[in-house]
Amino acid sequence: MQLLDGKATAQAIKDELKQAVDNRKSKGSKTPHLAAVLVGNDGGSLTYVNAKVKACEQIGFHSSLIRYDDSVSEKELLAKVIELNNDEEIDGFIVQLPLPDHIDELKITMAIDPIKDVDGFHPQNLGKMMLNLPSFLPATPAGILELMKRNGIETSGKDCVVIGRSNIVGMPISIMLAKKNDPGNCTVTLIHSRTKNIKEKVLKADIIIAAIGQPGFVTADMVKDGAVVIDVGTTRVEDASKKNGWALKGDVDFENVAPKCSFITPVPGGVGPMTIASLMINTLQSMELRNK
Amino acid sequence: MQLLDGKATAQAIKDELKQAVDNRKSKGSKTPHLAAVLVGNDGGSLTYVNAKVKACEQIGFHSSLIRYDDSVSEKELLAKVIELNNDEEIDGFIVQLPLPDHIDELKITMAIDPIKDVDGFHPQNLGKMMLNLPSFLPATPAGILELMKRNGIETSGKDCVVIGRSNIVGMPISIMLAKKNDPGNCTVTLIHSRTKNIKEKVLKADIIIAAIGQPGFVTADMVKDGAVVIDVGTTRVEDASKKNGWALKGDVDFENVAPKCSFITPVPGGVGPMTIASLMINTLQSMELRNK
Repeated sequence: MQLLDGKATAQAIKDELKQAVDNRKSKGSKTPHLAAVLVGNDGGSLTYVNAKVKACEQIGFHSSLIRYDDSVSEKELLAKVIELNNDEEIDGFIVQLPLPDHIDELKITMAIDPIKDVDGFHPQNLGKMMLNLPSFLPATPAGILELMKRNGIETSGKDCVVIGRSNIVGMPISIMLAKKNDPGNCTVTLIHSRTKNIKEKVLKADIIIAAIGQPGFVTADMVKDGAVVIDVGTTRVEDASKKNGWALKGDVDFENVAPKCSFITPVPGGVGPMTIASLMINTLQSMELRNK
Repeated sequence: MQLLDGKATAQAIKDELKQAVDNRKSKGSKTPHLAAVLVGNDGGSLTYVNAKVKACEQIGFHSSLIRYDDSVSEKELLAKVIELNNDEEIDGFIVQLPLPDHIDELKITMAIDPIKDVDGFHPQNLGKMMLNLPSFLPATPAGILELMKRNGIETSGKDCVVIGRSNIVGMPISIMLAKKNDPGNCTVTLIHSRTKNIKEKVLKADIIIAAIGQPGFVTADMVKDGAVVIDVGTTRVEDASKKNGWALKGDVDFENVAPKCSFITPVPGGVGPMTIASLMINTLQSMELRNK
């Protein structure tokens, strides 16, 4: 069993990006600038956004963190999105989800100019991804593909199950892995709450992507020997042994599944850091596209 | 075995659309207007476009057929697309594919305003489909779903294989069937040229969608008893017994597969007429959206 170390792989990507940015700066090129909009004080969202800002600092990107109180109106948030769309200095930006109930997340996502949508959530970017056109790929699926590629995992012709059909992970990665790309060319089965005989289906898979948000859902009896297991789950569960009182748990029963795998991602330190690395790749791309 | 009669189902839809259009006209509403652009003299394309124009006449839509010689420049064609985008009288339009080699199909498709893209090929419509947002659904997959729905075929929880990953049929229908919709909620496996053990996978399916363009690809030994088989293939093969010298052949070995099925589509008269019915549904929707 080999651990798919997302932290180390993400660090290697960030080192390359830093080198690339330094080279561009020395030639007088603009410094990439990522803005992040955060509404409220949710601990998880704050952690994610801070990690993104920190990654920018490490690489030498400019970053702006724009914070609003929970009470911000949809109108005010929309006005900020429009402002960021029009701000020539900003190469890409994200609005951290989830948003408070009184704000229509879809309306906000749709208002982001697709050419600055470095999270890859806008329908125009998703549609282009489907057609294999240049686009910002959704950050988590793109990070998973990059993690597999850099660790020499062959995907072509492999049987893959994706567990969970969310708009931001399960659905897009099922498409990306099925397309005629490298990584890609998998035979993908997308599994969800209505699927029958889940265990039987997962047992046949060469590659398992678990993105369902249920801690420990994938147990050892569902995994064939030598499978590649990618765990996208990050659920906070109470853990008295931790100083903050909780621990991040993945969708895979790591302890019992890991011995059967050829490769497996840990949680934390697997897919999470790769998502941030993808966001950084998208931001650099955006700067380059906008300055062509 | 029950034949899924696409011709009869499409006729029922067209009858309903005619009724709806008549009602709207009597209230002073605009008559839906579909335009079709055809380049060159390819026999297949001409047949398809003529069938679309004829369907408009039957329903009471206005239609315009705009024909160009094979030698038309990309620039001239693009100018026509822009003109149709801006023409308030036109509710939706299609540019019949394929186009001659000197014209970039993608550039033409991307130039069509998504709100008039009644074929549902624009990335913005595909992305919205992925997110379950209101959009023009690609005509052939939407026609297949409607055909199953109107014939009482349950999809929820069923195991489905889609054979072929084209941008206009295989890939979008694999998404539409997997989503939490009705029809939908299938567990979909997308099969393509790199898939291993195809026979074994197809044999497990409750629903088989064949969209690979290889006549007779799906043979009886690949189909389990009671399966639903949808044949999207329409390849012209030589047939001396026909007066035009060829016959349309589907991807399914109909003669031997049909006796095993619960439902099966014929070729011709199955999916083809449903594609045209979907186009008509999209055109009426477009008129209604634009006049809201």
